[in-house]
Amino acid sequence: MSDKPKILKRSIVAQSRLFKVEALDLQFSNNETRQYERLVRDNNNRGAVLIIPLLDKETVLLIREYSAGLDRYELGLPKGKVDAGEDYLQAANRELKEEVGYGANKIQQISSFSLAPSYMQHMTEIILAEELYEERLAGDEPEPLEVVPWKLSNLAELISSGECTEARSIAALYMARDYCGL
Amino acid sequence: MSDKPKILKRSIVAQSRLFKVEALDLQFSNNETRQYERLVRDNNNRGAVLIIPLLDKETVLLIREYSAGLDRYELGLPKGKVDAGEDYLQAANRELKEEVGYGANKIQQISSFSLAPSYMQHMTEIILAEELYEERLAGDEPEPLEVVPWKLSNLAELISSGECTEARSIAALYMARDYCGL
Repeated sequence: MSDKPKILKRSIVAQSRLFKVEALDLQFSNNETRQYERLVRDNNNRGAVLIIPLLDKETVLLIREYSAGLDRYELGLPKGKVDAGEDYLQAANRELKEEVGYGANKIQQISSFSLAPSYMQHMTEIILAEELYEERLAGDEPEPLEVVPWKLSNLAELISSGECTEARSIAALYMARDYCGL
Repeated sequence: MSDKPKILKRSIVAQSRLFKVEALDLQFSNNETRQYERLVRDNNNRGAVLIIPLLDKETVLLIREYSAGLDRYELGLPKGKVDAGEDYLQAANRELKEEVGYGANKIQQISSFSLAPSYMQHMTEIILAEELYEERLAGDEPEPLEVVPWKLSNLAELISSGECTEARSIAALYMARDYCGL
């Protein structure tokens, strides 16, 4: 494996309420130079969690939510940002209660995904939630989310429906299927 | 399912060489309003492809590449942008020749993934490449990429290694494993 490129210069080149773009001047170990751009996390960004709520060893709970990036409703796993004072598991349990109406007695981190490692610093912690019980917390969602139970043995149908396109949800659902031995 | 929110106003609020941020004023069907931000594609963005190169019915070819977003080397599937005049399959075959040193006699689109549908417009077309033959094209990579064959029966080890974190690669590898009946 090559030595990592040297970062010769870093500068913020664009910023909005939610996004911050950094330009990197890089020198690779073979002396090639490039300028790359990447999205970086704000200092007050504590990370994000995606939750796999297992209703039983065959069934996962999905939510249907308006997705502004694609301007359409998408089926996917619940997710959200970590709040101040929370660890990943606490954030996951809170989001589960807000978005799905369940808490989890058994909750564990099973992986950590990047979205686009070439140009995003962002990581998402993948949390498996089991032994669910009904509990709802008020969230900041603009409208109630529809909860859709889905059989893990039926992932091909979910993907080919075109309603669930998010790579993080799809990858996490396959991991859950393996976990359940299906 | 609710009616889609109305987009009351759209405006570009930040822009760099690679990224463009749009603010959306939304009114949901229950009259709740929100301002969301999303990354939108430039007009000259023709889309992106991620390629699953199957060396045989058990083995996929990964590449190890410096990923500026995470400032580290990552193992993952080859990918790239669609050039002018190319369709998705042509772009995939070109990227395969540039990044992996193979062309494919059999090539097909098997899915289409979003990265973060709530705040990114970006989609990636997932292309399965089979019946490989050696052919290398010069690309714009700053350094040669290491090609790493990996057994599809061994995805758990790949993920737990922490070297392959990208959700698109992981989801596509699981789809390939199903395709190969493993």
